[in-house]
Formats: sequence, C-alpha cells, structure tokens
Amino acid sequence: MNRNIHTFIACDHEYEDSDIVLFGAPFDGTTSYRPGTRFASAAIRNESYGIETYSPYLDMDLLDKKIFDAGDLEFGFGNTERVLNTIEDMTAQILKDNKKPIMIGGEHLVTLGCVRAATKKFPDLHILHFDAHADLRDDYLGEKLSHASVMRRCHDLVGDGRIYQFGIRSGDREEFLWAKEHVFMQKFNLDHLDEAVKNLKDKPVYLTIDLDVLDPSVFPGTGTPEAGGVYFPELIKALNLVFGLNIVAMDMNELSPVYDQSGASTALACKLLRELLLQL
Amino acid sequence: MNRNIHTFIACDHEYEDSDIVLFGAPFDGTTSYRPGTRFASAAIRNESYGIETYSPYLDMDLLDKKIFDAGDLEFGFGNTERVLNTIEDMTAQILKDNKKPIMIGGEHLVTLGCVRAATKKFPDLHILHFDAHADLRDDYLGEKLSHASVMRRCHDLVGDGRIYQFGIRSGDREEFLWAKEHVFMQKFNLDHLDEAVKNLKDKPVYLTIDLDVLDPSVFPGTGTPEAGGVYFPELIKALNLVFGLNIVAMDMNELSPVYDQSGASTALACKLLRELLLQL
Amino acid sequence: MNRNIHTFIACDHEYEDSDIVLFGAPFDGTTSYRPGTRFASAAIRNESYGIETYSPYLDMDLLDKKIFDAGDLEFGFGNTERVLNTIEDMTAQILKDNKKPIMIGGEHLVTLGCVRAATKKFPDLHILHFDAHADLRDDYLGEKLSHASVMRRCHDLVGDGRIYQFGIRSGDREEFLWAKEHVFMQKFNLDHLDEAVKNLKDKPVYLTIDLDVLDPSVFPGTGTPEAGGVYFPELIKALNLVFGLNIVAMDMNELSPVYDQSGASTALACKLLRELLLQL
Amino acid sequence: MNRNIHTFIACDHEYEDSDIVLFGAPFDGTTSYRPGTRFASAAIRNESYGIETYSPYLDMDLLDKKIFDAGDLEFGFGNTERVLNTIEDMTAQILKDNKKPIMIGGEHLVTLGCVRAATKKFPDLHILHFDAHADLRDDYLGEKLSHASVMRRCHDLVGDGRIYQFGIRSGDREEFLWAKEHVFMQKFNLDHLDEAVKNLKDKPVYLTIDLDVLDPSVFPGTGTPEAGGVYFPELIKALNLVFGLNIVAMDMNELSPVYDQSGASTALACKLLRELLLQL
Amino acid sequence: MNRNIHTFIACDHEYEDSDIVLFGAPFDGTTSYRPGTRFASAAIRNESYGIETYSPYLDMDLLDKKIFDAGDLEFGFGNTERVLNTIEDMTAQILKDNKKPIMIGGEHLVTLGCVRAATKKFPDLHILHFDAHADLRDDYLGEKLSHASVMRRCHDLVGDGRIYQFGIRSGDREEFLWAKEHVFMQKFNLDHLDEAVKNLKDKPVYLTIDLDVLDPSVFPGTGTPEAGGVYFPELIKALNLVFGLNIVAMDMNELSPVYDQSGASTALACKLLRELLLQL
Amino acid sequence: MNRNIHTFIACDHEYEDSDIVLFGAPFDGTTSYRPGTRFASAAIRNESYGIETYSPYLDMDLLDKKIFDAGDLEFGFGNTERVLNTIEDMTAQILKDNKKPIMIGGEHLVTLGCVRAATKKFPDLHILHFDAHADLRDDYLGEKLSHASVMRRCHDLVGDGRIYQFGIRSGDREEFLWAKEHVFMQKFNLDHLDEAVKNLKDKPVYLTIDLDVLDPSVFPGTGTPEAGGVYFPELIKALNLVFGLNIVAMDMNELSPVYDQSGASTALACKLLRELLLQL
Repeated sequence: MNRNIHTFIACDHEYEDSDIVLFGAPFDGTTSYRPGTRFASAAIRNESYGIETYSPYLDMDLLDKKIFDAGDLEFGFGNTERVLNTIEDMTAQILKDNKKPIMIGGEHLVTLGCVRAATKKFPDLHILHFDAHADLRDDYLGEKLSHASVMRRCHDLVGDGRIYQFGIRSGDREEFLWAKEHVFMQKFNLDHLDEAVKNLKDKPVYLTIDLDVLDPSVFPGTGTPEAGGVYFPELIKALNLVFGLNIVAMDMNELSPVYDQSGASTALACKLLRELLLQL
Repeated sequence: MNRNIHTFIACDHEYEDSDIVLFGAPFDGTTSYRPGTRFASAAIRNESYGIETYSPYLDMDLLDKKIFDAGDLEFGFGNTERVLNTIEDMTAQILKDNKKPIMIGGEHLVTLGCVRAATKKFPDLHILHFDAHADLRDDYLGEKLSHASVMRRCHDLVGDGRIYQFGIRSGDREEFLWAKEHVFMQKFNLDHLDEAVKNLKDKPVYLTIDLDVLDPSVFPGTGTPEAGGVYFPELIKALNLVFGLNIVAMDMNELSPVYDQSGASTALACKLLRELLLQL
Repeated sequence: MNRNIHTFIACDHEYEDSDIVLFGAPFDGTTSYRPGTRFASAAIRNESYGIETYSPYLDMDLLDKKIFDAGDLEFGFGNTERVLNTIEDMTAQILKDNKKPIMIGGEHLVTLGCVRAATKKFPDLHILHFDAHADLRDDYLGEKLSHASVMRRCHDLVGDGRIYQFGIRSGDREEFLWAKEHVFMQKFNLDHLDEAVKNLKDKPVYLTIDLDVLDPSVFPGTGTPEAGGVYFPELIKALNLVFGLNIVAMDMNELSPVYDQSGASTALACKLLRELLLQL
Repeated sequence: MNRNIHTFIACDHEYEDSDIVLFGAPFDGTTSYRPGTRFASAAIRNESYGIETYSPYLDMDLLDKKIFDAGDLEFGFGNTERVLNTIEDMTAQILKDNKKPIMIGGEHLVTLGCVRAATKKFPDLHILHFDAHADLRDDYLGEKLSHASVMRRCHDLVGDGRIYQFGIRSGDREEFLWAKEHVFMQKFNLDHLDEAVKNLKDKPVYLTIDLDVLDPSVFPGTGTPEAGGVYFPELIKALNLVFGLNIVAMDMNELSPVYDQSGASTALACKLLRELLLQL
Repeated sequence: MNRNIHTFIACDHEYEDSDIVLFGAPFDGTTSYRPGTRFASAAIRNESYGIETYSPYLDMDLLDKKIFDAGDLEFGFGNTERVLNTIEDMTAQILKDNKKPIMIGGEHLVTLGCVRAATKKFPDLHILHFDAHADLRDDYLGEKLSHASVMRRCHDLVGDGRIYQFGIRSGDREEFLWAKEHVFMQKFNLDHLDEAVKNLKDKPVYLTIDLDVLDPSVFPGTGTPEAGGVYFPELIKALNLVFGLNIVAMDMNELSPVYDQSGASTALACKLLRELLLQL
Repeated sequence: MNRNIHTFIACDHEYEDSDIVLFGAPFDGTTSYRPGTRFASAAIRNESYGIETYSPYLDMDLLDKKIFDAGDLEFGFGNTERVLNTIEDMTAQILKDNKKPIMIGGEHLVTLGCVRAATKKFPDLHILHFDAHADLRDDYLGEKLSHASVMRRCHDLVGDGRIYQFGIRSGDREEFLWAKEHVFMQKFNLDHLDEAVKNLKDKPVYLTIDLDVLDPSVFPGTGTPEAGGVYFPELIKALNLVFGLNIVAMDMNELSPVYDQSGASTALACKLLRELLLQL
C-alpha cells in the first residue's frame, strides 16, 4: 500500500528529477486587515484535482513537466524574521540545485524571503510585480516587515529602477509620490507591459503575482478586494509576454480561500498556477 | 381555498393549453467534483418571484405565453440508467403532444435522456452546445454514463458533424484531439456562432446550455467554475441569433445554487430562463 | 482617554467646520424580496478602514476634505411615513446650514425623504438616477410608499422631464411604457449620459445611486441582483462627468452586505463613497 | 400531467376534507434587529421532504391525518395593519369552517392577526406562549404594532391572567415588572407548565411558539438568538402536556433560515411542525 | 527534500509496521437529500492538525500508536456496485494482513463494502450501530443499494439478532415495525448499551458510527440533521464501554463538512477519530 | 449634531465618572490555527444593540452602572512584544486611576499584557482561568510569546499555586504533566470551583475567560472548537460564585465572529459581557 502523497495535480516527480520546485508559505502574520492567506496553499493542492492537467490556452500538459511539490514550510506565528529566514533558506537550496522555485503564499511579505535568496544568487535581479496595492510604505504602524512594505523592502535590496509594478490602484499618497522616483509603476492596468518586457530582456527576473491584481469579481477570495482590476484573459495574455524573459524564481500570493465560498477564486488560482508551471 | 401550486413565474397554464412544457431533473449522481445541481430547479422556481415577467431586452412578457410547469421528476440516486429512462419518457411524452420540452438540470448528463427522446422523433437532430467543458471523454474512471462523457454519448446517437460546441475552455488533451475529427468546437468564446447558425438552418436543433459557459464572476454557483468565460450580454446576444433556428427541445443545466450564497447565480439563471421561454 | 468616535474613514471633522454631512438611513421596511440593506451604513463605516483615504483616480485625499459623519438615524420599523419624516428633517437641517447631505441607505425608498427636503429648498430640482430597476410603479401590492415606487413618488414632486434614469434593465411593462411619457430613461447602460449632463447644466441636481446598477459580478451584495449591469470603471468615469454639475444632495443605497460574504461589495461601496465625497 | 402542488410533507388533502389548515405568513416588517423570517414558510415546505412523515416519538404518521396546506398569504411590506387584517381574515375563514388553523410565521407580530380572529370566535380565549422574549413592551420606538409588543397587544384583547409565558429570558426591566401584575411568566425554562395546564383545562387555548425559546445551539436560525434556552426534548415533552388542552388555533414563528446555513434549524422546525400537526 | 505525505495527525507509520489502517471512502452517490460526505475524509485529514495527539480523556497519545493512513480510495460516481467492490477489496486486504481497518465515509452505504469483507473473514460477525436513522428500508425509490437501506443489506449478510442499533430517532413506520422482529433497536438514546455489550462479549464486532447520531447542535455538519440526539460526552462514555469488545473493523461516516462552516463538526470528528484510534 | 460615539450598549459614560473601563485588543498575530479574533471587539460593540441592558438573571441593569468604553487599541501586526506593551500601558493607566479594566480580546495572548500591569500593582495576584486549552506550553514552534503559552508566561510572573484553571480539555501530554506540579487544573468542567473560590478569598484576582471553554454547540465562533465543553447556564452560575471575590481586572477572549455566521456566538459574548459588567 502506498503512502498518501499530496501534491498539486501532476507535480509528483522526485526532487532530483525535477526542474521546478513548488512549495507553500502559509504565513499571514502581518496582515493588518483580514487574515486567511495561510490557508491558500493547502486549498490550492486540494482543489487542483478539479482542474485538468491540460491547458487549451497553451496546448501543453502538466503530465509532460517534471515538477516536485515540497509541501508547505512550517513556521510558528509571532516572529516575522524567523519566518522570512525559513523561506530564504528553502529558496536558496532550490536555486543552489539549479531548479526554479515557485512559492505559493501566504501574504505578500513572504516574497521578501525569496527575493533575499534570489538577489544573493543573481545580484542583478529585477522584479516584475502584479498587484492592486503599491506595497511601498516604509513601515506600517511602525513595522518595517509588513505586507504593506514588502516592495519597499525589496527595493532596499535591488535599488532604483529594478522594480516594475502593474495594475496598482491603491496606496497612500506618499507611496505614489515615492514610486515616481524609484520604480516603474503602471496604474490600474497592464498597459505598457511590452515595453517593460523589452527592458527586462536578458535580466534575471523575479516574478511576483499578488492575485488581488485581478478584479474582485473574478477573484473575491482575498483579504483586501479592490474594485477596478484586471480580468483573467488579460492576465493570461500578459503572462505569455512575460515568459519570454529569464524568470529565475516566482511566487503567487494573497489567495484567502475562506472569503470566497463559491470556490471560484481557488479554482482560478489553480488554473493560473497550471499556466505558470507550464510556461516556467 | 386554492391549493399551493408552485411554478416558475407565470408558467401556470394548463398542460393542454400550453406550447411549452418546463420540468426539472434534479440529478447530480455522476458529478465527480462538487455536487449540488440537484437543488437547481427548486431554487429557480423559488427565486423566480424576484424577477419580472417582462423582458426589456425583447419587449415581451411571460404573461403572454402559454407554459406549463410540470415540476420535478422524482428519481432515486444510485442507478443512472433508470434516471435517464425517466427523463427520456417525460421528454417523449411532451414531444408526442407536439409541445416543446425545456428541462432544468441537474448535472449535464441529464441532457442525454432528452436527446435520446429527441433523436427518436427527429432522426436528423443537431445539437448546439454552450459549455466550459468539452464533455467528450469516452468514459470517466470507467463510467460511460458520466457528466464528463455526455456529449460523447450524444455523439453516439447523432454522429459526426452534428454537434456544435461553443465556449469550451477545459478538457483533457484527448478530448480536444477527438473533437477535431468529430464535432465543431469553438474554444473560449462564442465567435463563429453566426456561421454555425447558417449551417443549422432548417435542421431540428437541440439546444443545451451548461451554465458554466458563463464566467465564474457572473455565475459562481456551479460545481466546476472555469475562469475566462462568457459574459451575460454576450450570451443574450448569442441567443438572439440562435432562436431563428428550429429549436425542438432544450435544457439549461449545472446551476449549483449552494455555491453562490449571494443568490446572483440563481437570479441570472431565472432571467436567462425567462429569455429562453420568451423566444422558444 | 478619548471616546470611541466611529466614522467613515477620515470623516471626523466637527459639524460646524464641515462642508459635507454624511448620515446613514438603515431602513429596509418595504423591501419585498430580500431584506438586509439596514446593515449597509454600519458595514460601510466598519470596512472603510480597509481602504485608503487617497484616490489614485483623482489624485485627491479625504484627509484634505472637511466632512462630518453624523452616524445613523434611528427609527422603528413598521411606520414608513415616520421614517421618511425623520430623513426629511435631517436633510432639511443640513441644507439649511448650507452643507451638502450625503445619505447611505437603506433601501431605495429612503431617497424620497431627502428629495422631499431638497425640493423644498430647490423647487427646480432635477434628479439623476443610476439603477437596475425603474422604480416607477404607482404602487406595489397596494403600497404607495415602496422601494419599487420611489421614483414615481419623486416624480409626483418634481414632475415630467426632471428625472434622468440610467442603467435600467428591470421593471414591469407598465413602468417602461409610463417612462416614455414622463422621464428620460437609458436602458441597460450609461450611454448618452453626456447629453443628460448638458441638459442638467445650471440646475440643482439630486444624485441617487442604487448600487444594483452595477453588474452582480462586481456587486453581488444586494437584494435583487440583475445580470447585465455596469462595471466599476464605467461608473467611475460616469461620475467624473456628473460632478461638473451642481449636485445639491445625494445618496447611495441598496448595499445588503450579508449577501456578499467575501466583503467585495462593501469594499466597493466604501471606495465609491470615497470618490463621491472627494468630488462633491 | 399534474400540476406541481407544493405542500408541507403529506399535507396534500382537499380543503373540504381537512381538519387542519396550514398557512404561511411571510412577514417580518417590524423586525428591528435582523430580518429574514419572511423566508421561513417556504423553507419549511422545501425542507420537509428531508424528514419522515412518521414520528417515533408518538408512533403516529402524517399520512393518517387530513391536512390542507393553503400556501403563503401574500402581502406588501410597509403597512402593518393591512398585513394583520389579511391574517385575521384567513384565520376567521378557517375557524368559521370549523377547522383548526396553524400558521407559520414570519415574525412574532403575525400572531396578533390570528388572536384577533380567535378572540372573536372564542371570547374566553387564553394564550399559551413559549418564547425567549417577553414581547410585552407597550410600544417599540413609538410603534404599537411591533414584534416586541405583540403579547402586550394580545393582552389588550384578552386581559389579565389569560396569558401564560414560558422560557422568557430577555426583555427590558419594565416588561418584567409589568408582567408581575398582568400575566403568568415563567422565566428561563418550562417549569410549572403542568400547573398552567391545569388552569387552562376546559378553556379555549391559543398556542404560540416563538422558536427562539429554544437554545441557540439547537436553533441558531433566528433573528435574536438568546443563550440559555430550552432543548428540543424538553420542548417535545412540554407539548405532550399541552395537547391535552383544547387548542383552537396555533402558530410557530421566528425561524429565519438564512442565519443557519447548516439547515439544522429549518430541519428542527419541520420536525416540530410534524409533531404539532400529529397532536393537534 | 521530502515528499508531502498527508495523513491524519500522527498516522504516518509504514504499512508493514502498523496495527491499524485508516482509509477514506469519499462516496455519496446514493445520498438522496443533501450530498457532501465525499469531502469528509479530506477535511478530517486537513483539520486534524488543529487537535492534539494527546487525549486527556484516556491519558493516551497517538504518538504511541502504529497507524498507517492509506489516503482515499478513488472511484467514479454512477456505479454503486463498483464502489462497494473497491471498498470490499481494500478491507479484505487489510484484514488478510491481520490489521484493523478503520474507514472514514462518505455516506453510510460505504459500510456495506467493509461488512462484506468482514463477514467473509468473521462469519459470526455482529454489528454495533450508532445512528439517528434506522437505515432499514428494503429499498429507496427502487434502489436496493442506498444509504437508507444499508443496515437492511447488512442484515441480509449477518441475519437476525446480530445488529444492535442505538440512538435511532428517524425512519418510516415499516422500518420500526421490521426492526422489532429482526434487530435490537434502542430508540432516541444510548440506554441499555451495557446490556448489548454483555451480549456481544467474545463476538467479532463491526462498529459503525453514523455521526448524525449526535445532536445537530454539536454536529450540524451532516446531510440530514435530526434534532434530539446524543451529546459528545455521552458518546465518549459509550465508546469506553464498547472498546472492551473484540472490534475487528469499524467506520465513521456522514460528516458533510460544507454544512458546518464553523468547522466545529469536522473538529469533533477529528477528536472522535483520535479517541477511536487510541482505543482500537 | 452629535458625533457618532460607538460603545458597547450603555457604556457611554465619561472616563472620569466611570468605575469600569472597557477596551478592545484586536490582536490575533500568534494564532497558529484559524485567525479571526481581531474582529471580536468590533463585532461585540455592533451586536450589543441586539441585547437588552437589563439582566433577568441578576435583576440589574447596565443603565445603572458607570462604564467607559475606550474603543480598541491600535497596533501593527508583526511585533508581538510591542502589542503587549501597548496593552500593559493601557491597563496600568486604568488601574492607576483606580478603575477596573476589562479587556475584550483578541487571542488569548493579550491576557499577558494585562497581567503584567496587574502584577505590578498587585504583587499577590492570583489568576482564575476558564478555558478549553491549558495554554501551558513553554513555547510553540520556538515562540515564547504564543497563545498556546500564555498561561505559562503568566506563571513566570505569579509563580506556583496562583493559577486556577477550569474546563481544560485539550493540550499536549507535557502540559498536563507540568500542570500537576505548578497550577490547579480542573479538567473538562467547572467542578470544585467553590473550593477554588474559598482559596482565593481576600486575594486580588485576575479573571480570564477564554470563551472556548464553552461547548462549540453554544459557541462555535472560535478558532479551535473543542467538543465536550461547558454550557451557558453553568458558566453563568459559576460567575455568580466568582464575583464574591476581589476581581481587580479581567478579560474575555477568543471570539472569532466570522466562524459563526448565525451570530449566536457574538450574541452570547455580548450577553456574557453584560453579566460580567453588572457584577464587576
């Protein structure tokens, strides 16, 4: 009798054989408004059996890929720095073994752990960021390590001109002012992505997708829904552009499954993850 | 004092006087993922009192139509063939009386019962199929009678070139390959419907609408939500095209009301059913 | 220690200093279908702390405005006329003090209380009305004071040609017929709003937004969701047009938070209210 | 083909043949806190097919009774007096035909309509009242016709010493003081019911059961859950005592199905209604 | 890096080393009323990490036991007999290896698969049955293999006097009459369990727990909640009695997690399963 | 016009005049399983208008008490120590002004902030603790400041023999062993509370009520529901005993309103808080 191995659909290869390594980071300890993203990676694995391995968008099949699903990292809540260290260690290990890490959040702060590891291996790292929120605060109610500050902390590591933000439609005034000096920010939509892609050609790119970049109508299952977002086909099309780049690591975050009891948000996240895995 | 007769709004005519006969097929016994469509027909009747009988789209009113609502078929769960027989008998009776049957599912497999009856009366039957899923598997985990095989079973009855599928965006690789040889399949959207309509001119047409053809944002109340679907006004416009054809019977299926606690999915199904009844 | 003052975000100025006065009218006593709008104003205040005070759409910030939040009116249920009187008195007081009232419903009938006060101060009042429903019945099951009759009662006060309706996609046949003679009605969408705006130039305008004008996909949290509605960016754009007018008072109504457990509807209402307050 | 007659399970006899007449009063227009009881009677009919007609408690079967289900009364919202008149007329008709009326609320105020009719036929009417709330306010925020005043209005009709209340655990101080002079009130539980039953021997008795007399753990589906209530077996046992009396009419009210998404509250209400019908 | 093995908490031993083998049977294909038990075993595994491995009731710890969790059986829906065969094969294999099988349903019919295997190895098998429902119908709407007939089918295998039922409070009249002749049935509660235990001394016993034996207040997460059930401490106490017997196999069924969004039902099932595993 | 002051019902006195000061601590940052207690204090204030100010249990009325509601403390998430400092400062201030603090959590760890302040003023502080969980771990996944360690941290401050625990029914083996040496622990129920009360006579007592001490049937709205708990009338009775003591400060925590969509848990918490305030 076999043990009950539980993976995202079709991601059941051996670590050694795999090109891509998937892992979950079920942390939402700095979420200020509505928590719940800690449940995302488990939900995505469970519900992945409701989608197909085959993508009619790409005419590709997960059954043809070699992917290892490492399950979820385990961390206590209450010490943010320790959480980030665990994520960084995991990412560094995968990168060292010349595989591509793909992390499922959790809140957006988990990105910082991956980016720390990635900048060590790729000092010239650039970041491509899809999100409704700028996440550029210097601190949030005094905390430097916060979901609302994550891109600012990433900027501390990569510096000016290396972060490209798309879909941004919420933030305080200071974030929008600061952005003008330090990052590329496309407000409201994904226009001009082709130009960003040109700029990023030949660079090592970290891709981070905060799923709340999507319109709440197609993705209500998130802590801070922001009306006026991007639709699924637009995002799929954008990813086609993006995957011509040298993506060295990536994450998808901010699904909070409990807020969408229809399951449509989790199903969308599963489908998007399939498309990401097929193109990575 | 009058008995409590419970119908879809304004469908309270006598059977003999009616041109259209509505009935429910509350079966979801082969649903592999998330059941619940068995509750659709009751929900649609209950919530139909939240919509108007008048359509501003068509400037027509249900009060001017003669429709009989026969309530729901009753079946035990556990014997799929017996369920299909009950549906076939009901449909055959209505067709024999020269009325138009319209069935509310239930899962999509219920369509097979109607199509069996319809092909007996109309040997040249063609099928127009709106859906997110191809439903063209030869079997599902060994079962030939499955929601995932329903169009393949219909193909067994009508043969090549008689099935026109629109909006398909999910299936396994084999289904998409098989489709190329045997059916017309429009992926992702409703484009080229006008051409299909031209081909179907003068044919007896069975219309089957799996409501998950709609985008989950407008229709989350279904078992397997598939991002990237069709919007309500597109579907309304498509139906305008379709109803120039000789529709001899039809069904609308896969509403699972429990998955959309806002009631918006059920309300949409009610409104769509009104539009269908007005045009049939 | 300070008292726990509870306002819509950043609306914490003194009454005397304020230009705008916000108040809630938590009444849904004539709602015939699904009640719940009585909870809207409390939900909007609570959840307003999940949005930002800054609008990237307008590059304006609520922190720069002077707004007083008076909390909710208190009324017993069961006597509709008394409720309307309470609303009228409140509105009249604010208008008398030369401030702009903005009311959060509640069902749509609450609009009548404000309009009564506004027509007394502005006899030439015109009404701009966004809604899915015509609300033009002369009575509803015998009741003259009903959510389904509110615009007809407003017409009793302002007369022919003074009401402009947009987005209407539901009503009975008589309402649509009556509308042709007495009001301007744009069915289904916001087309021709620019023309209406031209006509309304230099008039005192009352703006009433029934949030169900929005598509249920972006706003499922309402009692009677009507498929085929307006999207958030369209509404935002429409408001840009509208706020060139002389808006003397306004309301936003028909959020029923309990029907959207994702919170996306309430979040949208908060964001829309911010945009309204910034432009008023 | 038969029309779709929709009744509480097994209550499908002709009016003329029946001893008991069931009807729904879907009104919650004076509910001050959380509405929703308007949906109770429809939910009870729908879900009654999940229970059995046979009671192992009584070894009796609904199939052996003659009961007519008249469906729901229809009323507009906004005019409380008119609603009460409709209920009174219905009750009077049933009583005139020498049948026993049993009404499903709706909020508790609907009881007043029945009691008005019953006191006309039975001037010596006594009232047996199970409830968490005293409902003895003289008015509620100025309204004399309110769910919170219903027993006070009944007292206006029947006078001192004729109302027996059980299970009461909530009210304002004045209600409890007033009760001492005018009614029999058993606080918190059903103790001393046997003594009340002795006093009521040979009297015409109206029985009104506000389902919130039950503990919220067994009956969360109600607008104002009050911890510390009665359990189901206690209530069943109490009813055994009660049905030795001359019950001339009765009602069961305050189920608000939407607040208990498990369906357990509605299922309990169905089962309790079966027990009531079997013993009436 | 390790594979993501997913088990009930602490049931992560090798098959060969284990005394007990846990598996899930996610089938609800004959459920006539509200489906959903197919999700129970996955929910129980997921939520088991919210309970402790240590039982203060027994002062025992799962960490000291050797249990293998084989995951869930996989079956298509639509062919009940095939499902039962799969369950029977699994059970037979475990029994052949001299381990104790414990199955998590699914609907109650899954018990039949286990009992078929168990009677082959233990021809003198007796069955101890906790349930709200008798499940003694000869067929349900014509289906012999139905959740409502499962104990009748078991009786076909074990014969008169071998089935002991406790807590039964629902069924049709015929079931209760039939029971008098063929099984021991304790209505409503667990009284006389000690006597049954005496009778069962030295017999091979199959224990089947339909979780709806519990009161819906403590266990609302089930398809057919029946008021008036057993409380958790009573059930725990009963199990203490039972585990003096020679339990050769067992199951726990009818959790339908979706109907209890608080998670309390699933948490209770996890805790109960811990107590069962510790005592088996 | 008055500002919208938002308090627990009837707790609207001035700080200077008040004997009791209520405040919220909306923190759940170390919750390891299901977060959500951060929403408790807001929910309790909102829903307090659904209960009465009068207690029929005590024949006392909140209208006769002088209580100030200070609203909620504000803290960022991510730095547990800073949160505890904020709570400690608030508590110290209230104690310094010779008023009694009563805090609404939040997760149980918030208790530590209050206890730190209370031990400074009352070095002989004893703690009376109602809970399902022992909360006696020395650390949780490496974190010393955790909801699962809170009573252990309190023990660090008060020492052996000063903590009395009641209702405990969950923990790991080590916690139960450690408890034997260092605290008084009553497992499963509230027995022997009278003896504890005798021991605590004349001591300054801190009372902390983790609401999950209640059975999940009466209180499902909590993160970690533990079957087999205490019922509401038992807890009310226990509090009658307790309030003969010298309670110098107290808290009530672990309501997670989102997990009980019926609102019954929040309503119970409101009622319990009323009883606590009346007796403090």
